[in-house]
Amino acid sequence: MALLTEGLTQVLIPVAALIGLGFALVQWYLVSKVRVSGEASDYDGYKDSLIDAGEFEEGVDNFEVSIKVAEIQNAISVGATSFLFTEYRYLGIFTGAFGVIIFLFLGSVKGFSTKSEPCTYNTGNICKPALANAFFSTVAFLLGALTSVLSGFFGMKIATYANARTTLEARKGVGKAFITAFRSGAVMGFLLAANGLLVLWVSINLFKLYYGDDWEGLYESITGYGLGGSSMALFGRVGGGIYTKAADVGADLVGKVERNIPEDDPRNPAVIADNVGDNVGDIAGMGSDLFGSYAESSCAALFVASISSFGIGHDYTAMSYPLIISSMGIVVCLITTIFATDLSEIKHVSEIEPSLKRQLLISTVLMTAGIATVSFFALPSEFTLYNFGTAKAVKNWHLFFCVSIGLWAGLVIGYTTEYYTSNAYSPVRDVADSCRTGAATNVIFGLALGYKSVIIPIFSIAIAIYVSFSLAAMYGISVAALGMLSTIATGLAIDAYGPISDNAGGIAEMAGMSHEIRERTDALDAAGNTTAAIGKGFAIGSAALVSLALFGAFVSRAGINSVDVLSPKVFIGLLVGAMLPYWFSAMTMKSVGSAALKMVEEVRRQFNTIPGLMEGRAKPDYATCVKISTDASLREMIPPGALVMLTPLIAGTFFGVETLSGVLAGSLVSGVQVAISASNTGGAWDNAKKYIEAGGNEHAKSLGPKGSDCHKAAVIGDTIGDPLKDTSGPSLNILIKLMAVESLVFAPFFATHGGLIFKWF
Amino acid sequence: MALLTEGLTQVLIPVAALIGLGFALVQWYLVSKVRVSGEASDYDGYKDSLIDAGEFEEGVDNFEVSIKVAEIQNAISVGATSFLFTEYRYLGIFTGAFGVIIFLFLGSVKGFSTKSEPCTYNTGNICKPALANAFFSTVAFLLGALTSVLSGFFGMKIATYANARTTLEARKGVGKAFITAFRSGAVMGFLLAANGLLVLWVSINLFKLYYGDDWEGLYESITGYGLGGSSMALFGRVGGGIYTKAADVGADLVGKVERNIPEDDPRNPAVIADNVGDNVGDIAGMGSDLFGSYAESSCAALFVASISSFGIGHDYTAMSYPLIISSMGIVVCLITTIFATDLSEIKHVSEIEPSLKRQLLISTVLMTAGIATVSFFALPSEFTLYNFGTAKAVKNWHLFFCVSIGLWAGLVIGYTTEYYTSNAYSPVRDVADSCRTGAATNVIFGLALGYKSVIIPIFSIAIAIYVSFSLAAMYGISVAALGMLSTIATGLAIDAYGPISDNAGGIAEMAGMSHEIRERTDALDAAGNTTAAIGKGFAIGSAALVSLALFGAFVSRAGINSVDVLSPKVFIGLLVGAMLPYWFSAMTMKSVGSAALKMVEEVRRQFNTIPGLMEGRAKPDYATCVKISTDASLREMIPPGALVMLTPLIAGTFFGVETLSGVLAGSLVSGVQVAISASNTGGAWDNAKKYIEAGGNEHAKSLGPKGSDCHKAAVIGDTIGDPLKDTSGPSLNILIKLMAVESLVFAPFFATHGGLIFKWF
Repeated sequence: MALLTEGLTQVLIPVAALIGLGFALVQWYLVSKVRVSGEASDYDGYKDSLIDAGEFEEGVDNFEVSIKVAEIQNAISVGATSFLFTEYRYLGIFTGAFGVIIFLFLGSVKGFSTKSEPCTYNTGNICKPALANAFFSTVAFLLGALTSVLSGFFGMKIATYANARTTLEARKGVGKAFITAFRSGAVMGFLLAANGLLVLWVSINLFKLYYGDDWEGLYESITGYGLGGSSMALFGRVGGGIYTKAADVGADLVGKVERNIPEDDPRNPAVIADNVGDNVGDIAGMGSDLFGSYAESSCAALFVASISSFGIGHDYTAMSYPLIISSMGIVVCLITTIFATDLSEIKHVSEIEPSLKRQLLISTVLMTAGIATVSFFALPSEFTLYNFGTAKAVKNWHLFFCVSIGLWAGLVIGYTTEYYTSNAYSPVRDVADSCRTGAATNVIFGLALGYKSVIIPIFSIAIAIYVSFSLAAMYGISVAALGMLSTIATGLAIDAYGPISDNAGGIAEMAGMSHEIRERTDALDAAGNTTAAIGKGFAIGSAALVSLALFGAFVSRAGINSVDVLSPKVFIGLLVGAMLPYWFSAMTMKSVGSAALKMVEEVRRQFNTIPGLMEGRAKPDYATCVKISTDASLREMIPPGALVMLTPLIAGTFFGVETLSGVLAGSLVSGVQVAISASNTGGAWDNAKKYIEAGGNEHAKSLGPKGSDCHKAAVIGDTIGDPLKDTSGPSLNILIKLMAVESLVFAPFFATHGGLIFKWF
Repeated sequence: MALLTEGLTQVLIPVAALIGLGFALVQWYLVSKVRVSGEASDYDGYKDSLIDAGEFEEGVDNFEVSIKVAEIQNAISVGATSFLFTEYRYLGIFTGAFGVIIFLFLGSVKGFSTKSEPCTYNTGNICKPALANAFFSTVAFLLGALTSVLSGFFGMKIATYANARTTLEARKGVGKAFITAFRSGAVMGFLLAANGLLVLWVSINLFKLYYGDDWEGLYESITGYGLGGSSMALFGRVGGGIYTKAADVGADLVGKVERNIPEDDPRNPAVIADNVGDNVGDIAGMGSDLFGSYAESSCAALFVASISSFGIGHDYTAMSYPLIISSMGIVVCLITTIFATDLSEIKHVSEIEPSLKRQLLISTVLMTAGIATVSFFALPSEFTLYNFGTAKAVKNWHLFFCVSIGLWAGLVIGYTTEYYTSNAYSPVRDVADSCRTGAATNVIFGLALGYKSVIIPIFSIAIAIYVSFSLAAMYGISVAALGMLSTIATGLAIDAYGPISDNAGGIAEMAGMSHEIRERTDALDAAGNTTAAIGKGFAIGSAALVSLALFGAFVSRAGINSVDVLSPKVFIGLLVGAMLPYWFSAMTMKSVGSAALKMVEEVRRQFNTIPGLMEGRAKPDYATCVKISTDASLREMIPPGALVMLTPLIAGTFFGVETLSGVLAGSLVSGVQVAISASNTGGAWDNAKKYIEAGGNEHAKSLGPKGSDCHKAAVIGDTIGDPLKDTSGPSLNILIKLMAVESLVFAPFFATHGGLIFKWF
């Protein structure tokens, strides 16, 4: 048995979650000390915080600018909230309908019988009826969906709260602005990590009241939590991604290319929609996404553990190993954050990226020690795992290696992504250089960069898979995924930092703040592009591991012992599965393109018909652009969503578990590549453009300045990269893990009733 | 036993091959009747053919133009020949070195022993020593390499012979020009199909003199033929692809975009290199590629048959079923060609595409009847096949279905490709329309189109795989591949027609022929873009089936009974295999980009330093541009070539056959998607540009004319598409099948000595 007692485990997990929540509140309090005048009539708050005017480098401490900042912040916040509420109405209907499907499909496995059944794995014992599992899976699904939506919503609220504050702090210097943006990211990171852990812990304990000793049923039902989390994330990512990129592409095409006005210029009618988009897509969507990954990897690990000796021997502490790892992760990230916010200070723009990279490194090193501690105290020194039916003896230090290799693979992926997307290194500079000969070579070099950037991540993931599987079979892979996500609070903090800085720059531009402030926010934003790419790298790397773990759990649950590529049923699944990321990307890219075309027409119309708009004498009609983005994203998120949600149901019901296994493996191995290359290509183009704009060295100066032919070519690349990096790419990791978790939840149904077509013929 | 006797089989196959060769000669003779004055002093030939000046619609029958045409043709032909000879010197070294590797690796399987061994499948009998197999595999490899090189070389010769003749015929009308271009394509198609069949048949019969009754060893050695064919095709495609696209992109970027001069304008220094490139890349490379597919599918089918009842029962006729199908294919294509050249005449530009599509349909319908005939006469009515060790009873009409479904899947892929890349349908028109908002939306829509275009081909391939595997296991898949390639002569004819027309247009422009003639060649060329895309669709579709068949043969030969995705060794192979197409594409795209940058600099330099060049008073220095393309392609083809050739050797030697199986399956399912989407995206962009240029309807007119903003955006798309459709995309199908055939050839070595790393740890 483990050294840690069950009672202590039951205390430590919620305490860690509460510490995380508390820390998030503290960070929020610190951010809130920067005052933004909320209403034009209320100047006191503003005066309170900016009382020492001598502190500012520039003489911009005037009421007008501050009021403008407050107005813009308000517009962004209202726009984002209203969009999310509209989106949630649709998602509410979907969640209700899909909840019914889950209940009916799973209930039908044993014909809605309320009779208890003999257990599958814990042989000799009696487990709860399938109908109960159907009911609790549905409840877990609803809870996961709710938590996911809350994660996204709170993230958005914090980001819109922080953007204007970052702008205002940028007047004091780049260091202050950085701290504000980073703290706000940390609020989101800790809130989400702690909330996810807490809800999961509470659910398990509540479900246990009914399930008692039937841990098979308990943890099988809990997988619904992951499904709920990821299905909301899918729509959040796709809907938010289409929203933000339709606005962004539309705004850029008319504003930057045709009218030659700066990015985020307040004369551009699509500028508010663009800034709203950053919050609903990059913040809310990403928050839901990483929460989904976290929930799924926990569920996969718990499920696999429940059918191994931990579950059968009812060792609660060892069973809770995944949750204890996450608890430790919260503590580690808390210490890591203090390094960035209190133990060092950014004095120059060039220190931002190294500081963020240091965060990754510190959290990884500390977490390695944390994992060792947890593995030593929470696990028995030796135990048995089941690998598709065969028993495997595993030692506690084996699991330490599994979790650690996931964690370090994440770091390698993060650093690789940084290398390929930061304009401090040669890959992005080569792409910038290729703009000399125009947009075409820029695109060719950018695509090549994205393709190349998959090599190291794929080898890292492959090594992590091989080592963790060899040591602890599918359980090893699921805890490796958890390891990669154990520092999720830090990962989310540096990820959310990006869109917040982007918004801060937008607000500075719109409020007409000085060139110098805009330069500072631009530098924050350039680092933010890189961190956003790193975040996407983590998201996709962990998605690959999570999907594989879920795939393994699905296969175990469906009672298959091998997935043989030489069987035609499996092979055609593999081939079609590998095609799905392309189908999905085609839909999302086309949606962004079409919505952007509509946006372009509207922006052009306003420039042509509103007199005085270009001269800044008249205000554009922001609301129409917001409406175009809203309508497009809500309408266009349905087909790709349906593709992802229906494929496992159709494949499983009509073609059976073997073909479905092929589909899952195919979409996994193909989707990872498309997602990584799309994200990195887009990130590289964005930063190549920023590199030319910033003109930070001789080479960059020779390509610029803004408005030069090179810069125009770079803007085209940036625009193409938008849907790749913010719509298709990041949605793909949800595609692969959502199909896997959905298959896992429906596995009992497919195993009983699936493969209709092959049964008919 | 089969109704067809062994003696008759031995006569029919070479007779069909000779008929094919004869038909190619007849077509060549007909093309040669169009006279081009070869030297400035020799006007007689020219006068001979163009004696009836009244026949011409335009008064352009003057010596000057004709001499210019002859000069340009000569320059292109000399350039292409000189490049291919340089390339072949490199390939000669590679072939020699790799031949030694094959001999040493395979020889080492039984320690270079000259002792005969008991047979593996035909139990109870004695087979030839492994050393003999090593020797004959090496010989077959060399023969395959030689045949592949000859196929490419003759194709290039014919194409450079035909391009000027097509230009001259375009003066008489679009119908005449079409017939000339199509006939020339047919020369290449029939020459290649007949030559491939003949060399294979001769080799088998010569090898039989030594092997006698040991058919296992015989057909195992023959697989070297496929490896030789495909390895030459790899370098041909990659080297030729880089050559042609470096020149094309470089010429377009300076000529069309910066200097605003038409495509193929003789003032552009890169124009000769561009036209040479069409012949060495699209013609010679593609010829080698399809020959490789043909050789590999034949070898895969023969190998699988040799270890089933045909081989064990020594039923020579049934054993030769793949060759008899190919023989029937030659006859069917012969009839089909006559429909296009003699039974119908093109009177209007709009009839070109339907006529080419009709060719596909006619050949498919006729071939279905042909397959039925062959299956009835050449096969026993029932026989046994071995499916990874288990016996399976198969009827002759089962094989009829297998071959037919491959054939019809090819037609579906061809038609789908046509739909997505022809400017007669909405997908390309939507892409053209998106140019309204600039290059960025054009690229977004184009990429989305490419992604979408994989859906139907993948489902077709999946259905073909499922049906043919269900009916006749891996043998079914290999004959399905052969079915798709059975109409290769027609497929190659309409494929080669594209670059010939492209060159004809270039020659018309360079010779300063009238606008009307250029319009005709443009129309031929636009249809050619579509047919080139169709050809690539066939190439990739057949490559998928061929690779799977080779994969199956490899697995049988390596003695594995299942390739289980749940085994980590297999899964990491799958993941890394799926990454290889990206790595490979990154290399080739970057190579084209870098070479194009060099080309741009040279072209700019010439425009800036040669006085009177823009005014047409001075001649550009074509040779330097040719040299840039040559050097770049020869240098840059080595890394991607090494990646493809070394991966199976490294994976097999160090990680063993299971991981290698994963790599093959992964690269297959991922590479197909990348290849199809890249080819179709590029084809669509090219035709979107042509659609705007041609201005054939109100919509197109609203986007044009040449030089408008829309057109400029379309040119950028076209330029990006160049390396996608002509370098990366088509090389990928060689990647997947070459790795498979290489694995098959080295299977005995890997099975004996492979997996060193796992043995060490």
